[in-house]
Amino acid sequence: MKTLALSSWKLGYSENVNALPAETVDAWVPSDVQLVWQKEKGMPDYNYGRNYKEYTWMEKKFWVYSTDVEVPAGDLHAELYFESIDYRYVIRVDGKDVCEGEGMFTPARVDLDPWQGKKIRVDVVIYPVPHVESAEGEDRVHASHSVKPAVSYGWDWHPHLVPSGISDKAELRVYPSSYIYDAAFSYELSDALDKVTVKAEAVVKNPAGAELLLSLVDKEGKTAASVKAPADEKTALSVTLEHPELWHPVRRGAQTRYDVKVTLLKNADAIDEKGRIIGFRRVKLLKNKMAEEESFPKPQLPNPITLEINGQRIFGKGTNYVPNEIFYSRMTRERYAAVLEKARDANMNILRVWGGGLTNREDFFDLCDEMGLMVWQEFPLACNNYPDEEHYLSVLNQESISIIKRLRTHPSLTLWCGGNELFNSWSGMTNQSLALRLLDMNCLLHDPHTPFMMTSPNCGMAHGNYATMSGEDREAVSDFIDRDYTAYTEFGSPSPAPFDYIQKFCPPDELYQVSVDNCWLDHHALRAWGEKNWFNMAHIEAYFGKADTLEETIEHGLVAQAVSYKGIFETARRKWPDTSMAINWCFNEPWPCFANNSLLLYPDLPRPAYYAVKEALRDTMFSAKLYKFRWHTGEKAEIELYVLNDPAETLPEGTVKVILEVEGKETVLYEGSYAAVAGGKVEKIGACAFDVTEDLPKTFSLRVEGSDPGMNSTYKLFHV
Amino acid sequence: MKTLALSSWKLGYSENVNALPAETVDAWVPSDVQLVWQKEKGMPDYNYGRNYKEYTWMEKKFWVYSTDVEVPAGDLHAELYFESIDYRYVIRVDGKDVCEGEGMFTPARVDLDPWQGKKIRVDVVIYPVPHVESAEGEDRVHASHSVKPAVSYGWDWHPHLVPSGISDKAELRVYPSSYIYDAAFSYELSDALDKVTVKAEAVVKNPAGAELLLSLVDKEGKTAASVKAPADEKTALSVTLEHPELWHPVRRGAQTRYDVKVTLLKNADAIDEKGRIIGFRRVKLLKNKMAEEESFPKPQLPNPITLEINGQRIFGKGTNYVPNEIFYSRMTRERYAAVLEKARDANMNILRVWGGGLTNREDFFDLCDEMGLMVWQEFPLACNNYPDEEHYLSVLNQESISIIKRLRTHPSLTLWCGGNELFNSWSGMTNQSLALRLLDMNCLLHDPHTPFMMTSPNCGMAHGNYATMSGEDREAVSDFIDRDYTAYTEFGSPSPAPFDYIQKFCPPDELYQVSVDNCWLDHHALRAWGEKNWFNMAHIEAYFGKADTLEETIEHGLVAQAVSYKGIFETARRKWPDTSMAINWCFNEPWPCFANNSLLLYPDLPRPAYYAVKEALRDTMFSAKLYKFRWHTGEKAEIELYVLNDPAETLPEGTVKVILEVEGKETVLYEGSYAAVAGGKVEKIGACAFDVTEDLPKTFSLRVEGSDPGMNSTYKLFHV
Repeated sequence: MKTLALSSWKLGYSENVNALPAETVDAWVPSDVQLVWQKEKGMPDYNYGRNYKEYTWMEKKFWVYSTDVEVPAGDLHAELYFESIDYRYVIRVDGKDVCEGEGMFTPARVDLDPWQGKKIRVDVVIYPVPHVESAEGEDRVHASHSVKPAVSYGWDWHPHLVPSGISDKAELRVYPSSYIYDAAFSYELSDALDKVTVKAEAVVKNPAGAELLLSLVDKEGKTAASVKAPADEKTALSVTLEHPELWHPVRRGAQTRYDVKVTLLKNADAIDEKGRIIGFRRVKLLKNKMAEEESFPKPQLPNPITLEINGQRIFGKGTNYVPNEIFYSRMTRERYAAVLEKARDANMNILRVWGGGLTNREDFFDLCDEMGLMVWQEFPLACNNYPDEEHYLSVLNQESISIIKRLRTHPSLTLWCGGNELFNSWSGMTNQSLALRLLDMNCLLHDPHTPFMMTSPNCGMAHGNYATMSGEDREAVSDFIDRDYTAYTEFGSPSPAPFDYIQKFCPPDELYQVSVDNCWLDHHALRAWGEKNWFNMAHIEAYFGKADTLEETIEHGLVAQAVSYKGIFETARRKWPDTSMAINWCFNEPWPCFANNSLLLYPDLPRPAYYAVKEALRDTMFSAKLYKFRWHTGEKAEIELYVLNDPAETLPEGTVKVILEVEGKETVLYEGSYAAVAGGKVEKIGACAFDVTEDLPKTFSLRVEGSDPGMNSTYKLFHV
Repeated sequence: MKTLALSSWKLGYSENVNALPAETVDAWVPSDVQLVWQKEKGMPDYNYGRNYKEYTWMEKKFWVYSTDVEVPAGDLHAELYFESIDYRYVIRVDGKDVCEGEGMFTPARVDLDPWQGKKIRVDVVIYPVPHVESAEGEDRVHASHSVKPAVSYGWDWHPHLVPSGISDKAELRVYPSSYIYDAAFSYELSDALDKVTVKAEAVVKNPAGAELLLSLVDKEGKTAASVKAPADEKTALSVTLEHPELWHPVRRGAQTRYDVKVTLLKNADAIDEKGRIIGFRRVKLLKNKMAEEESFPKPQLPNPITLEINGQRIFGKGTNYVPNEIFYSRMTRERYAAVLEKARDANMNILRVWGGGLTNREDFFDLCDEMGLMVWQEFPLACNNYPDEEHYLSVLNQESISIIKRLRTHPSLTLWCGGNELFNSWSGMTNQSLALRLLDMNCLLHDPHTPFMMTSPNCGMAHGNYATMSGEDREAVSDFIDRDYTAYTEFGSPSPAPFDYIQKFCPPDELYQVSVDNCWLDHHALRAWGEKNWFNMAHIEAYFGKADTLEETIEHGLVAQAVSYKGIFETARRKWPDTSMAINWCFNEPWPCFANNSLLLYPDLPRPAYYAVKEALRDTMFSAKLYKFRWHTGEKAEIELYVLNDPAETLPEGTVKVILEVEGKETVLYEGSYAAVAGGKVEKIGACAFDVTEDLPKTFSLRVEGSDPGMNSTYKLFHV
């Protein structure tokens, strides 16, 4: 197969599906129509101020991408191939409809053989973005009847701005007359993990006299296993490899992958080939320890949410990955990498790719495979009641099968999930919803050995809170200490963005006016979630008291966020194996939020909380259990001391000290030693306390230091 | 098609699959081998004493049913047809294997055309009952790798006695040369319930030149709708009927059904036909009211468990139906009817057919259709961890598809469920178990509009307790008053069987010796569930004190059971619509239990509790809320007065009195009137109280009487 990128695109819009655009501009592909129009019309940066509002009219239009294609002629097959068109479209050749489709996750393919040797005009007409006529407003409900990421319609950290376009590569493909139309790969690992059977299902056109070769090639380029068979229109091949190298999550072993491919042979010549990278791992979702305890009467025990990878139980330390851009065509490999590297470097091992967003491109999964980051992938359903309707279900069926077949060879793909908070009251779906039963079925049919769950939270798990303080004098961390959930798959601590960051995106006259009447509202500082979030002044002042300037308040907010996140992550880890996951909301953001729960600022700039979380997620470390970080005079602060040892290996014995540091003066509260800690264990190794006296300053700190300095931990404390 | 029952069967056993039986006896079909051997060998009644133990050796043998068949010859097709062979089998013709199979829910069919005009010998060899080599004991774990009802291996009310046999009809079928091999029917109701599309998928052999007629015939024998099309090897037909009469649950409207059939026509002559009875209803499983209330953090809300039938929400009042015989061939229409009529007459509307037992024969569902009893049907999985193994899953796949396709036209079939208590600790399955995902998939593919849930209890629901007393001085009913579950799909109150009933099945020398050393143990009076159940002496004495004789203790036990059941059923009903189901454990029993939670004694004799439950489940009634029925001197008994009005119709206003009756003397505690009560509502209409004084006798009673005497309720109270 040869591919030729299509170029010299023109773009325009019209008011109905058959009208020609009144005006066209030069365009490129992949692109979103908003980005093309922005560039060609000199529109202002949508990330700045309230400029994004100037783009929303585009969502109501029919957009037409056009180009000319010279179709080759001969003993060949020519095809137009679109990896992704967002969202509903019709493709025309010389004005005649040749393909209609809906859904950005299934490629569009047009047979060009009728036009061999001719120059043709190709028009791709994209319908206005999905909109539910009966629904009010412009929010996520308009995504409820389509397989379109709901986040684009507006979220508490995303403006209403809905992409549209030819959002991935568009090619002219030229095949020999016999060729591989499609090839799907999967594998089965033996129970003992010592044998893998790799399967290919190939669809071959004009197979007469041809053979198919399935081969598995290791990282040195050596063929590890192969099998050959006569080609048929549908050919199933399988080959077994003894003792395959497995893929392991980060810091648990190598991230080995192989190349797998099918080659079409005619007279021993390779005339066509399709392949992909593949990695082998076994994932099981096991019951948590607390799911073994029964009460009377007997209700359902919590659903399983402990990851076992290649036989090892692993605490899921991670974060919610949200779209890293508003527009899909901007999600390049480089941009993915910048965010993902920071997740890996923060000692995380899992990303929940939340159902409000999209299923990312191949580059995202290639990078996660390489880095050993496990991916919890949700289908594009979130916070809506997706209906039991035939049309919606048929598109969801098509799109989910495309997604599953594409991702199932990526070893990083660890968990399928129907979507976000679908069983909660604001969504209203249940385990009876046909959309969720359909997704379970498609995962079972096409990727049976990867776990599937209908939604998060599921029985036993929890989402929330999203605050440093859960009451006037109570910190969120205290709630987490008192709670018993199997997994925290969303929890957040908000803060404003740094002042100099906000300055880049806020008009100067609004900069010091934190108000719902200006762009502080649009950039989610206020009324994003309730009246006073995400720039929650009262919660910041609960730690630091009133500040003199906005800059100082923001500095305080950034510190409080870091303290809260560190405390909650460590609390969840100390509860292992009752609790098996801590996944904060959220890691990144798609545009500059003036306040948010994220650890990174758009596009990938760490907040102070990022470094605090990185410290809280070290594989092997000391953790001090403090019921709270804010203390009143007269209270006694009790401290329990733990060793967290995530790796499979035993941690050797050592010594440890707890030091209270007040204005440079150190008091040793505890000094002791601890025994060796087995792999995958949490052990309490000591306890101490101090009295909160009147003379303590507003902030002071607690340090845990040991014979292995890499395990040391520091806690900022507040006297209020 | 003509059918000829196969007769003149012989039965014998051997030690391996190829050996001939050393001895054969006359047999019949349908039968279980144990029943044949019993009759021919004069074995004693397995229901008496410990005689059942004499039957267990049969489970280890290979059983061979044999008969001779004269295969007709001509322009026809001849087939051997077995509706159900239990469990694993091989069929031989003249000593040659012609069919192998596993599973009692899928018919076995053998093409006899190679033997046209010959007399052949047919052997059906049945393997020993499923047994898991690696497991110890003889209990239910041996059913964990097969689709065999687990109850047969022993339960707390069922001896270990595992059926085996040709458990349903065996026929020689003679078809014309063109014939309908198979026909499956289904239907789709419109959203407004005003239109039904009935679909048939027919497999026709030698269809050339033939036509297929799909017709729907109403109860007067009039063709309501029909369609004709040329017959093909696979033909899909559908016909639409406007304004169909719907099927309704008992006391909610008529139980209308139709006949649906496909007829094979050749030159306008009907040459073959297949059909069944069909009824139309819409079932939805909706969220309960309490599933709308959110807490923080957000866990999963309870799963839906409120039934909506044809647009009306219905409280599920019912019971757990368990196998009504140990042996399948004894489950005749008459025996089903005797039990089912009693459920209907007890004002019940739903039966949970528990996963430890089997999927009943057609007669059971025909009767439930006729009587308007809704059926919650579980697949045959219970209290085991059914494995993710290829062989097990392939049999489960085959059996579940057979079950679903057979039952989906029965309007009484209301809810599919994967099985019993599979998410609880003693089972160990989860929502990741492939068996449960497979069942969900098959229900979605073959009966998408009937709800499916993986197991009971599901999130929000509860099983238990199974006791009149939950503490030394605390009644179970008080627990139910304090609880907030969406549905109670198992709860029990045990009692001994009446003395004269036990006498029939207990050897005289053991009758007064309630001991674990004799048949009181085998008949579940002791150590059935814990040490002291189901003849729980302490719990009986908690109400009545010590009795002088066994007969008196039993009488007391029967009364305490009735009091407890009535109280719990009414408690659950008063919590509507937060609680939406009350389904007690259990209705019937498969053999004579000397003590049990059942409302009927084997085979279908009502206990006193049956009448108490019947009273507690009247559609429209008064219910007095009492926190308990046992009172101590000095306490104040508070009473809240409710009207329960299940029907859709408004209940007119009326008057009501509460009367305390002590040794024939009546005191009016309350006198008042109540306003009209809307359909489907529970209303509190008043409250009163009385002081528990020293002079009260050991038992006394409370009566609620009103202007509508059909609503009157009486409560037995105890002074302890």
